[in-house]
Amino acid sequence: MKSNRYDMTVPWGDCDPADIVFYPNYFRWFENGTTELFASVGLELPQMFKDHGILGIPILDAHAKFMRPSRFRNVITVESAIESWGNSSFKVIHKIYNGGVEAVIGHEVRGWVVIDETHVSGIRAVCVPDDIRARFD
Amino acid sequence: MKSNRYDMTVPWGDCDPADIVFYPNYFRWFENGTTELFASVGLELPQMFKDHGILGIPILDAHAKFMRPSRFRNVITVESAIESWGNSSFKVIHKIYNGGVEAVIGHEVRGWVVIDETHVSGIRAVCVPDDIRARFD
Amino acid sequence: MKSNRYDMTVPWGDCDPADIVFYPNYFRWFENGTTELFASVGLELPQMFKDHGILGIPILDAHAKFMRPSRFRNVITVESAIESWGNSSFKVIHKIYNGGVEAVIGHEVRGWVVIDETHVSGIRAVCVPDDIRARFD
Amino acid sequence: MKSNRYDMTVPWGDCDPADIVFYPNYFRWFENGTTELFASVGLELPQMFKDHGILGIPILDAHAKFMRPSRFRNVITVESAIESWGNSSFKVIHKIYNGGVEAVIGHEVRGWVVIDETHVSGIRAVCVPDDIRARFD
Repeated sequence: MKSNRYDMTVPWGDCDPADIVFYPNYFRWFENGTTELFASVGLELPQMFKDHGILGIPILDAHAKFMRPSRFRNVITVESAIESWGNSSFKVIHKIYNGGVEAVIGHEVRGWVVIDETHVSGIRAVCVPDDIRARFD
Repeated sequence: MKSNRYDMTVPWGDCDPADIVFYPNYFRWFENGTTELFASVGLELPQMFKDHGILGIPILDAHAKFMRPSRFRNVITVESAIESWGNSSFKVIHKIYNGGVEAVIGHEVRGWVVIDETHVSGIRAVCVPDDIRARFD
Repeated sequence: MKSNRYDMTVPWGDCDPADIVFYPNYFRWFENGTTELFASVGLELPQMFKDHGILGIPILDAHAKFMRPSRFRNVITVESAIESWGNSSFKVIHKIYNGGVEAVIGHEVRGWVVIDETHVSGIRAVCVPDDIRARFD
Repeated sequence: MKSNRYDMTVPWGDCDPADIVFYPNYFRWFENGTTELFASVGLELPQMFKDHGILGIPILDAHAKFMRPSRFRNVITVESAIESWGNSSFKVIHKIYNGGVEAVIGHEVRGWVVIDETHVSGIRAVCVPDDIRARFD
């Protein structure tokens, strides 16, 4: 399964008075990891959203386990891969490394939901298209 | 001129390793001050955006002067008022008090821009409607 | 077990181009829920950190399940309660309601860690003090 | 005068329901621009803070003028340079380019403040050291 890595340097404003990363920021970096993972297989999300008539890939579930803190100016690596495909969802595994050591591991489950004005909610969950899945094989 | 105040308690995650508020957050609270100011005169922004065919009230200019730091769990007051109306813009003055003392003062200039598909940019600056202005007198 | 609720109105800047809350913000509100839960039993965190020689209550694990989106100006309720105490950690359950309906449920596991210069890491996990636990009974 | 540039790609979560960057984020990128500017002359801020007994370089004043919106996945360039040195402060000019065109221009004024327990406030503004200034010539 295709995986992708990106490096970033922890900014001052993403750290808290305990001098470590404020944890919700890790989920911002997970989100970015998913975006970069799709980009790495040629799927730029703004174009993909247009092509498939979707508003986004809405989050259904998110988890993280925090093993080591990271600090201002630490260079960290965010590694992301799709672990599995559901009917109308998929699960992305994220690992964040600091100094080569696992610092945070977690996941996101995201849905594939198209705009459908005939539905009360205005949206409808559908199968992830095969050509999308195929990109990650 | 109508002004509005709201109180809030500084959250942990909005403070930085120097143990004080990370400054871009003050602009988040300015934004919220503008939203609450409009709400205080009966203009809930989501409804106002629909009623007037606008996407938002885009920022044109923002400034803040930081006089005293605020810290985790400090209760601060954000006071907002429209200082002046331009042709297709308006200026909001914000003052943030901590313990009754001015801690931050600043402003936002925002535009009034309608969706117009006949324009290249898809939007067009227009005069702020009189009934909107009248609410703040 | 003691629980606490606070209400908040979703700000513009915490929503994303899909017009719903950007999910890491829910974890910011979980964090705030934990802070408010402690405050509700008389434990203001800045004072508690000083009294107990701790830098914070570091996050060990966080999870959220997202059932319904929330939008700009929605009034939501964050309900937080300690579910269980570990040796040197505790688990806080958070539920976010929108219009009286569960929109997000999740948890945080946080550690109790004192400053200890005699340790290599500079910190040491210890038992949560009995007088802290007793407050939540 | 030394200037520095860094590129970044606009993340999803930094955009708002109007599909453009939520403006306080530009100040986060200004902050990062200052950090990267110092790094570009060999001054890593965490080390510089230790070496000089300072807690940070506190913000005194910030301004931005917003000329063009930026959107999800736009690649932008943040260019930062010190414009002038005050007695115990300095002014950093930031320009953000999108597609080679100026999108945001602004500044930060920051103070040079040492820890001084003999003062009531616990801090004291002092002259920016000559060896710091010399790095930017």
